Amino acid sequence: MIGTYLEEVRHKAPLVHNITNYVTVNDVANMILACGASPIMADEPEDAVEITAICNSLNLNIGTLNRRTIEGMFAAGRRAKELGHPVLLDPVGAGASSLRTKTALKIMEEIRPDVIRGNISEIRTLRDNYTNRRQENAAGGQVSAGATRGVDADIRDAVTEENLEEGIAFAKAFAQETGCMVAITGAIDLVSDGSACYVIRNGMPQMSRITGTGCQLSGLMTAFVAAGGEDKLAAAAAAVCTMGLAGEMGYQRMQEGDGNATYRSRIIDAVYQMNGEILDQGAKYEIR
Amino acid sequence: MIGTYLEEVRHKAPLVHNITNYVTVNDVANMILACGASPIMADEPEDAVEITAICNSLNLNIGTLNRRTIEGMFAAGRRAKELGHPVLLDPVGAGASSLRTKTALKIMEEIRPDVIRGNISEIRTLRDNYTNRRQENAAGGQVSAGATRGVDADIRDAVTEENLEEGIAFAKAFAQETGCMVAITGAIDLVSDGSACYVIRNGMPQMSRITGTGCQLSGLMTAFVAAGGEDKLAAAAAAVCTMGLAGEMGYQRMQEGDGNATYRSRIIDAVYQMNGEILDQGAKYEIR
Amino acid sequence: MIGTYLEEVRHKAPLVHNITNYVTVNDVANMILACGASPIMADEPEDAVEITAICNSLNLNIGTLNRRTIEGMFAAGRRAKELGHPVLLDPVGAGASSLRTKTALKIMEEIRPDVIRGNISEIRTLRDNYTNRRQENAAGGQVSAGATRGVDADIRDAVTEENLEEGIAFAKAFAQETGCMVAITGAIDLVSDGSACYVIRNGMPQMSRITGTGCQLSGLMTAFVAAGGEDKLAAAAAAVCTMGLAGEMGYQRMQEGDGNATYRSRIIDAVYQMNGEILDQGAKYEIR
Repeated sequence: MIGTYLEEVRHKAPLVHNITNYVTVNDVANMILACGASPIMADEPEDAVEITAICNSLNLNIGTLNRRTIEGMFAAGRRAKELGHPVLLDPVGAGASSLRTKTALKIMEEIRPDVIRGNISEIRTLRDNYTNRRQENAAGGQVSAGATRGVDADIRDAVTEENLEEGIAFAKAFAQETGCMVAITGAIDLVSDGSACYVIRNGMPQMSRITGTGCQLSGLMTAFVAAGGEDKLAAAAAAVCTMGLAGEMGYQRMQEGDGNATYRSRIIDAVYQMNGEILDQGAKYEIR
Repeated sequence: MIGTYLEEVRHKAPLVHNITNYVTVNDVANMILACGASPIMADEPEDAVEITAICNSLNLNIGTLNRRTIEGMFAAGRRAKELGHPVLLDPVGAGASSLRTKTALKIMEEIRPDVIRGNISEIRTLRDNYTNRRQENAAGGQVSAGATRGVDADIRDAVTEENLEEGIAFAKAFAQETGCMVAITGAIDLVSDGSACYVIRNGMPQMSRITGTGCQLSGLMTAFVAAGGEDKLAAAAAAVCTMGLAGEMGYQRMQEGDGNATYRSRIIDAVYQMNGEILDQGAKYEIR
Repeated sequence: MIGTYLEEVRHKAPLVHNITNYVTVNDVANMILACGASPIMADEPEDAVEITAICNSLNLNIGTLNRRTIEGMFAAGRRAKELGHPVLLDPVGAGASSLRTKTALKIMEEIRPDVIRGNISEIRTLRDNYTNRRQENAAGGQVSAGATRGVDADIRDAVTEENLEEGIAFAKAFAQETGCMVAITGAIDLVSDGSACYVIRNGMPQMSRITGTGCQLSGLMTAFVAAGGEDKLAAAAAAVCTMGLAGEMGYQRMQEGDGNATYRSRIIDAVYQMNGEILDQGAKYEIR
């Protein structure tokens, strides 16, 4: 059952290195503490390389990136991979600017993260550009196999019940092409390693009116993947269920007059209070 | 009525680009989300220029400024003005250091923001220095007209009922001289475009014991001015009323033992729950 | 009584300059406001030097340090010492990376802070390295007196009732060697100036599941030491009691379902609500 992955995080208490944006970094830290792991932040290249070595996993989030922190991401990313630590990429705003898109792609190509987590628009941007680059790199005009995909592996908008098949095919195809786990989060969340795909229906639409719920989830996934045993895909999916279920539980505790600021705290609190049994009872997922 | 400006924000959901200090940035983001707009933060010059282009308005806040973010402010500011996006300047700490004072003045001269929002001390600093520079720039020893002002357009301390006439005259004169809207916030808030002046009496003194209520208001105003229609002055004033009324509503929900940390969340929550009708009923302003 | 030191902070309302990490900076600011002082943040060297001059004390926290902010710490630190402002060093993560260890040591040697506050692991790292450097600097192979210490001045792990004597001896010896006050915080807190040592038993273990309670305490101590009169040691100890007692009071207000995010706010709220009488009644300390 998926609840064991939360218990593993609490048991192993992994140390998670985060190079993340300064907008939501405090919530990311408290979310990582809430699930039983411990956060460290370090982005100066010289510092980041050493800090990542004493950690168990690395969370790279490109919101509010700058030249110095980009350098820190690559330095820490290379070191983490050398040490066999799982690396997660959160491509915040990929598609919104060329610096963000380029940086995310370069991390994919040079660091080869173990997990990428973003919304459909960010993941679409990465897919389109990643495939194009691979095509350009293919010598002699031959199109790489990865670039060929049917319409069933494509999806433009948010994943819904109506286009779920296409969403699943898209997630699987991109995971296969990149060789890493892909989590596309939205009203319905998809987490795939290329062969299986978790379809997760936890969460509340009001979570999108809090800044950084995506960043918090990325921190949570980095902790779960670090702690998780054999089945890394289930560990990643468990993090998504935990966040979504916490969104539901936190919302139930809302009182008259409460808004997005209080909701923010209630979600982190719900993760703090959650255990494997609660997660097993509340997680709504199927494997496709 | 002023409530329509809040409704406009919720209806148009403008995207607000913020280059702001790292102390209060998370609260600024949640406040912008609370009013129905969406925040983006980007300060690396290369990134900031592109991000501002996909946004509807720009909020420049000089707290915790550094050489790199200053460069980002000018790059984004120029681009935003080219595109006709409203730009707000929050001169945090102008007068407290020469770097802050110089940067704020340079933004005024080179970017020509549409709105400046600060406390009386910050605005005084800008006014004194701005006028001096204009005098120095005036060739042949002629003093520019803008530099001449009677005692009725001057005010040293916080705006009170006693010196209200002087405060209004000061706000109008500075708005005329600079050609932008000026919001001077404190116990009584003044918002002027040089001809009219909103005098606003919402708010609670306890708001000053929370870090960043001024920064949050600047984020809110940048959203309101982006969404607002013809009457930009009314839109800016509506943002000030919204923040002050949220301070009153949030305070009413305080329980025994609650302090500034909980109050911070309650104010953001109150904006989240507010609508045009509530704002119309609670806004306390007169136009002078 | 120790409560007078909190009353002094509220009475004098010192301005505290903080160069601190971007993870917990907002909570540090609200904590400083909660105790009645005012925070300012500035880390660009040019700005930091001027800002520190208008403040009453300086809080240097090396979490998420970078080349630019390190330069800012030294520039502000030198200026603060010239002006006779108390300087506190929070060596976050000393021992976790060589950049952090080196920076903390260099601040100790070049700035000579008035207070150092950290956990046992950080303080141990500083002590070992500081002593080694002094030995290396001692010409002719003579070992400096400060480097000689019996086992009673040494402690490897968290301070407990079992090793309390060793902990006190360690704190006193390090304070003597460095000539500054040393605060070692954990389940039992020790604050020593080399001759006396406060042993403080306030606080809750759950405080360690909130990010930045240590950073907040450092902000609080910087305010207390700035406001405190003759007895700087008592002022520093009063800050530690205030934080620990706030942790107890905040915990008592926790409701079913509350977790670390809500607890964070309740602790700041408790400081906001505290007065000298409450602190005197709740502080649990002895002087050794």
